[in-house]
Amino acid sequence: MIHKLALIGFGTVGQGLAEILRDKAAHLRDQLSFEAHIVAVSDVLKGSLYHPDGLELATLLEVVKQTGKLTDYPESPGLQRGWDSLTTIRQSNAATVVEVSYTDINTGQPAIDHCRAAFESGKNVVMSNKGPVALAYAELAALAKEKGLRFCFEGTVMSGTPAIRLPLTTLAGNDIREVRGILNGTTNYILTQMENELEYATALKQAQELGYAEADPTADVEGYDALGKLVILANVIMNVPLTKQEVACQGISHLTLQDVAQAKAAGKRWKLIGRIKKENGRVTASVAPEMLPLYDPLANVMGATNAITYEGDLSGPITLIGAGAGRTETGFAILIDLINIARGNL
Amino acid sequence: MIHKLALIGFGTVGQGLAEILRDKAAHLRDQLSFEAHIVAVSDVLKGSLYHPDGLELATLLEVVKQTGKLTDYPESPGLQRGWDSLTTIRQSNAATVVEVSYTDINTGQPAIDHCRAAFESGKNVVMSNKGPVALAYAELAALAKEKGLRFCFEGTVMSGTPAIRLPLTTLAGNDIREVRGILNGTTNYILTQMENELEYATALKQAQELGYAEADPTADVEGYDALGKLVILANVIMNVPLTKQEVACQGISHLTLQDVAQAKAAGKRWKLIGRIKKENGRVTASVAPEMLPLYDPLANVMGATNAITYEGDLSGPITLIGAGAGRTETGFAILIDLINIARGNL
Repeated sequence: MIHKLALIGFGTVGQGLAEILRDKAAHLRDQLSFEAHIVAVSDVLKGSLYHPDGLELATLLEVVKQTGKLTDYPESPGLQRGWDSLTTIRQSNAATVVEVSYTDINTGQPAIDHCRAAFESGKNVVMSNKGPVALAYAELAALAKEKGLRFCFEGTVMSGTPAIRLPLTTLAGNDIREVRGILNGTTNYILTQMENELEYATALKQAQELGYAEADPTADVEGYDALGKLVILANVIMNVPLTKQEVACQGISHLTLQDVAQAKAAGKRWKLIGRIKKENGRVTASVAPEMLPLYDPLANVMGATNAITYEGDLSGPITLIGAGAGRTETGFAILIDLINIARGNL
Repeated sequence: MIHKLALIGFGTVGQGLAEILRDKAAHLRDQLSFEAHIVAVSDVLKGSLYHPDGLELATLLEVVKQTGKLTDYPESPGLQRGWDSLTTIRQSNAATVVEVSYTDINTGQPAIDHCRAAFESGKNVVMSNKGPVALAYAELAALAKEKGLRFCFEGTVMSGTPAIRLPLTTLAGNDIREVRGILNGTTNYILTQMENELEYATALKQAQELGYAEADPTADVEGYDALGKLVILANVIMNVPLTKQEVACQGISHLTLQDVAQAKAAGKRWKLIGRIKKENGRVTASVAPEMLPLYDPLANVMGATNAITYEGDLSGPITLIGAGAGRTETGFAILIDLINIARGNL
C-alpha cells in the first residue's frame, strides 16, 4: 500500500526526507515493501502544493533548489496551490502529516495545533519538531490513541540515532531507572575544542562558523535544547510526566580552560549531561556540566556527536552513540517512523 | 493471551529467564500486556517436566537450586516427567520453544535438530545458542518463514544488548555497509588488563578466575567465538550468506606488552575486532586484533563489555555498547524476543 504524506514545512529536514524518498524508492520498495508518495507540501515561506496522486520529487526538489520557492513547480490537472498548513492537514488525502516546520520551544506553536488538526482529521503525525512533544506530549499522545492514530517523533532526540525507539522496542520489559546523555552536539563540540585548549569564546565562534551553533547560541549553550530533549525522554521512555519547569538547568558558558585542566588532572572530562533518575519512587532530573571519569562511555564521545546511556534493570547499562543532527540523518528519522507505521510496529 | 514456552536446557540462561518471569510477572502483564507460562523444561542432565497448564516457577527454581535436578518438583495431576528434548518439542502444547541448551559451534547439534522439530510441529524458536544461527541460518529462517513461524535469537550476539534487533527495526531503510565490533568480552577484558601492564598469561589467568574465560580458553582467545557472531551479523543484518570458513580469523594470544606499548605511543589501542564490509559489490570479513585510534568509540570500550558500530548510508555511524553476557542479561535477551513475538513485531 502506498503511504501518502503531507509535509508541513519544507526546510532542511523536509528536503532531506524528499531526497531519501527520491533516491531510495526502489530499495525501500524491494527490500522493505515500503512505498511513500508526498502528496502535499505547505511551507510558510516557500508556498504550497497539493496533488492527490502525489508530487514529482525530482522536480519538486529542483524547483526549490533553484528558486527557494514552490511557484515554478509545473502545472498539471488536479494540482492545487496556496493551501495553508491547516487546510493542507485537513483537506489533503494524506494518511500521515509530517510536521517539520520550525520549533518554538516556548509555545510549541503552531505545531501543536497542526498535531491536533491532524489527529482530528484522522491522520497520523510524524515529526522532528521538539516543541509539541516537550510541551504537550500527554495531551497529544492521548488524542492519537483515542483516534487509533500514530504519533511518532524519533527525530526529536538525536535525529536518526534511535534514542526513542531503541528503549521502547528493543529494551521493552526493562524498568529503565536512569537515562543520562549528551543531548546537544553544539555544546559537545565546544567542550571538545576546549579540551584542545581553545577558549570558550573561540570555540563558540568556530561552532558558529561551522553551522553547529546559531547566531544567538543561547538555546544550545545554556542547556535549553538539551532540556527539551530530556523532558521528551522522561515522558516517553520513563513514563514520568516531567515538565521543563521542574528541571534544574545549567549550561556551559561559565566553564573556563582552568576548569577543563582541573578535570583532566583528575582523570575526568566535562560533559553537558541531561540526567533523569528514578529511585525509591522519587524522580530527579537535571541538565548540567558534569565531570565524568574517562571510563564512562559518555566521557569519550567527542565533537558534535550525541550519546545516551539507559540503565535497565535487566539489560544493564546500554549506551547508544550517533549523530544528533544533519539533513540526511534527520530525514532518516522521519523515514524510520514511517516504515514502522507501515509495519504496524512501535 | 498467555504465551506457553518449552525450555530446552535449564542452565544459566534458562534459569535467568525463569527468574525474570517469576519476579516481573506483574510488571510485564500490567505494562506490556505480556504473560508467559513455562509449560515444559527438558534438560539432558537435570531431567524433564511438562504440565500443559504451566509449571510453578518459584518451586521449579528452588528445586534446581537445592538439588541441581528436577526430580523433587512436586507431583500433581497431569504432570509428565522424563520426556527428552525432541518429545518435549513435539508433544508439548507450547507455542514457542526456547532453545537454551549448550552451544556446539562446530556441528550446531543437537540444537539444529531441535529447531527443525519445532518448526515442523508448528512452534516458534527463540534461542541464545549461536550454533544453529551461525551454521544453518538460511535453512532454518526459510523453514520458519514457510511455516509462518518466528525464529528469534537476539541473545546470540551481545546477550540482551540489542545488536540484532536494533539494525533490523530501528535502522531499517539504511543500507548497512559496514559492521565492526568488539564481540567477545573475555578477550576485551584481557586486552584491558594488558593496558594496565599485566602480561597476557597473567591477564588470562585472572579472566579464568573471574569466570570470564573457560579452562580451555581457545574459543575466546583465538577469535572463534567472535567469528561465530560475525557470521550471524553478516547473514542476518547484512544479507550476506557468509560462512565461517570464508573469514580470516586471528586471535590475541600472540600480543605482547611491547605491542600494547607501541600502540599507546601512537595514540592507539589494540582491540579484537570483527569486521564485515560491503564495497563495490565485494564483501570482506575478518576477525583480528586492530590498533584503533582513541577517537574511535570502540577504542574506549573497556573490560568485559561488548560494542558494535553500524555504518548506515542514512543514519551515519551508530555505536551500541553493552553487556555481552550474563545470567540476567541473556535471560532478558530471550524475554525481548518473546515480547516482540507477542507484539507481532520484528
